[in-house]
Amino acid sequence: MGLIEGKSGGGTKVINTTWNLLASTPPPDWNSYVKAGIHKPNTPTIQAINQAEFQSDIIRLGTGELSPELLPYYQTKALFQQAADQTMSLGYEEPKGNFFLRQQLALHLKESGIQTSPSAILIVSGALQALQLISIGLLHKGSSILLEKPSYLYSVHVFQSNDMRLVGVPMDNQGIQTSIIEQYKRQYNASLLYSIPSFHNPTGTLMTETRRKQVMELCEQLSLPLIEDDVYRDLWMDAPPPSPLKATDKNGMVLYLGSMSKSVSPGLRIGWVVGPEPVIDRLADIKMQTDYGSSALSQWAAAEWFSTGLYHEHLSDIREELRDRRDATIQTLNKHFKEIASWKVPKGGFYIWIHIIPNLSMHELFSKALKKGILLNPGYLYDYNGNQCLRISYSYASISEIKKGIALLATIVKQLLK
Amino acid sequence: MGLIEGKSGGGTKVINTTWNLLASTPPPDWNSYVKAGIHKPNTPTIQAINQAEFQSDIIRLGTGELSPELLPYYQTKALFQQAADQTMSLGYEEPKGNFFLRQQLALHLKESGIQTSPSAILIVSGALQALQLISIGLLHKGSSILLEKPSYLYSVHVFQSNDMRLVGVPMDNQGIQTSIIEQYKRQYNASLLYSIPSFHNPTGTLMTETRRKQVMELCEQLSLPLIEDDVYRDLWMDAPPPSPLKATDKNGMVLYLGSMSKSVSPGLRIGWVVGPEPVIDRLADIKMQTDYGSSALSQWAAAEWFSTGLYHEHLSDIREELRDRRDATIQTLNKHFKEIASWKVPKGGFYIWIHIIPNLSMHELFSKALKKGILLNPGYLYDYNGNQCLRISYSYASISEIKKGIALLATIVKQLLK
Repeated sequence: MGLIEGKSGGGTKVINTTWNLLASTPPPDWNSYVKAGIHKPNTPTIQAINQAEFQSDIIRLGTGELSPELLPYYQTKALFQQAADQTMSLGYEEPKGNFFLRQQLALHLKESGIQTSPSAILIVSGALQALQLISIGLLHKGSSILLEKPSYLYSVHVFQSNDMRLVGVPMDNQGIQTSIIEQYKRQYNASLLYSIPSFHNPTGTLMTETRRKQVMELCEQLSLPLIEDDVYRDLWMDAPPPSPLKATDKNGMVLYLGSMSKSVSPGLRIGWVVGPEPVIDRLADIKMQTDYGSSALSQWAAAEWFSTGLYHEHLSDIREELRDRRDATIQTLNKHFKEIASWKVPKGGFYIWIHIIPNLSMHELFSKALKKGILLNPGYLYDYNGNQCLRISYSYASISEIKKGIALLATIVKQLLK
Repeated sequence: MGLIEGKSGGGTKVINTTWNLLASTPPPDWNSYVKAGIHKPNTPTIQAINQAEFQSDIIRLGTGELSPELLPYYQTKALFQQAADQTMSLGYEEPKGNFFLRQQLALHLKESGIQTSPSAILIVSGALQALQLISIGLLHKGSSILLEKPSYLYSVHVFQSNDMRLVGVPMDNQGIQTSIIEQYKRQYNASLLYSIPSFHNPTGTLMTETRRKQVMELCEQLSLPLIEDDVYRDLWMDAPPPSPLKATDKNGMVLYLGSMSKSVSPGLRIGWVVGPEPVIDRLADIKMQTDYGSSALSQWAAAEWFSTGLYHEHLSDIREELRDRRDATIQTLNKHFKEIASWKVPKGGFYIWIHIIPNLSMHELFSKALKKGILLNPGYLYDYNGNQCLRISYSYASISEIKKGIALLATIVKQLLK
């Protein structure tokens, strides 16, 4: 009934057991409040994942983040030790975020061909918050957003909670297919196209240069603005990806998202949006109203990561580590899944999108695997119509866990098929 | 037209000057997007304040935060220097936030009589974010919230942007008046009462123990849940304030908000909500969907502040500093404003609420003062119906700036009266 509250010492107890009886002073019916809110709850699978991630002894085969082994504890500590007194920001920052960090980012973005200035950059607490700000800051209720299908965006409710609709566009090996975008834009009166061109989440697809050109040309022709979610860009393994869409954006069509979460540390909670200044001003104003800006400590640390050159150094280590992990994972998949699944070898990012060939309930597989200590990210999280896929991540679990986990998973799949 | 974008090097230029002409490929009309968003923009005065705060040579007489002189740079650096390798959290945290921090907070809250456990605490990025989560997580569109009038809450749009209504209840020297709450609850079908009982923002009022009892009894009787915003509690000067409402909350009526922003560092962006577990679970789930949790670096630092005992040490220094600043400010007001304004001496917090006696346009005073280099927080930010008041803060500007600023302000007021 919504009446459990903690007591000091760690336990919890149900308070006011007279609730719902004919008590003379009933407490508020929190349950009705919990159900009333505007924002949709996470799906049961995601709630289960969010909880299970903190169980010990669980092998996390789907988690889209760097392994604790790969997080730069030593470097972060060194940054703070080197900091001279008074250089750390402990107060509120400017509405768009720490100026020095935005300067550093403008330089960083230039390396991938994006010409911008600090005033066209907003610091956010991760790319997800940027989407949240775009949702409440730029769009009408009832808007439609075109996106790749499947897409990470289906697994969060930033747009749907504001009565907006996601309209999935099919993909091929080169990225989002352009043939249907014009029709969908008209049919659904779409406001935006959301895309993850580099090392797409969850499929790992790298949009080709040709496709990038086609997408930009089409969107310009249709006056259809884009959100380019490019948080995996720096995690290439074999060769750097083609230039971002934003690099060829002459008409201010693209809101570009980046983040430290995938490449350095999700715990920093630092991301950025780059776009036309009036749009950035609007998003900054809303950010001030929702959380008064991102952690100044984190912003300071992020700026140091770039200005000291540590970011590049770290990235080249991480790329090597991810390459090893990817190769070991593919090897293990070849060993155990060759007969029952298909996949492509990703050229960067964290994910292998494996398609289970025999018909199988992915909900059942998720629960069964969780009981055996394996946490999966099933494909239906990324596509409302469901599919026979799993997002396998090689970034989080250790190589030995991945080997053990995939072998066990193959056994579970085969049992379910019997 | 929404088409300015930055170029590297720091300048900005208007891109695509053919926009609005008969261009064959018009860019998106960002201006229409900027106007479309669900979330209300900040009021022009607050936007002006947010900008002016980062001008140099401005005396900030209204700013509700600790002066840079009072921020604990040295201590923060020391915390990081003492940190053993691997103790810092750089990954994502549990949905409710870092467990060790929540344990520390449960102990800290016990000191003011609040019995709770880590599972009933959610870490947020400042108390404002808690309000944002409550707004989208617990309330229907069209809900009404009762609150003190004036109130800080009028100056942000967390509830109004979700089509909710603020219903102001008059205050006296003891805090919010209880006589009209029952009627308003019925009349407006109010969902919540929002209150700042300790060192109220903007009036500085400290709710008495008697009034606290009356408020709790009434809310229990009416089944009217409360949000107790207690971010100024630890900033008492003469004697600790009466126990929080939450300390006498036997029925899970109160969602209790606290923060590091006012007492240690706003740049940490660390606050907390304490309440019945199902409510905290719901808010945690939404927080995961909007920003995946608060900065782990900041959470780690916050936990260290409490666990090392540094928080208490620091607070006793800050109290002394604030006492000196308050006394100097009152002295200066006595010197320059005795004839033209009235005020009460606050017993804690940051604010003196001064009522300008002669009739005067506060909008004009704000602009005039800004031109002369004085940034004010006029009372109309905190009360839609306006008033003849200013929120003077003694926390931010240095004592010499306060003296200079108040003297200059008196001259400006007298000029406007001519």
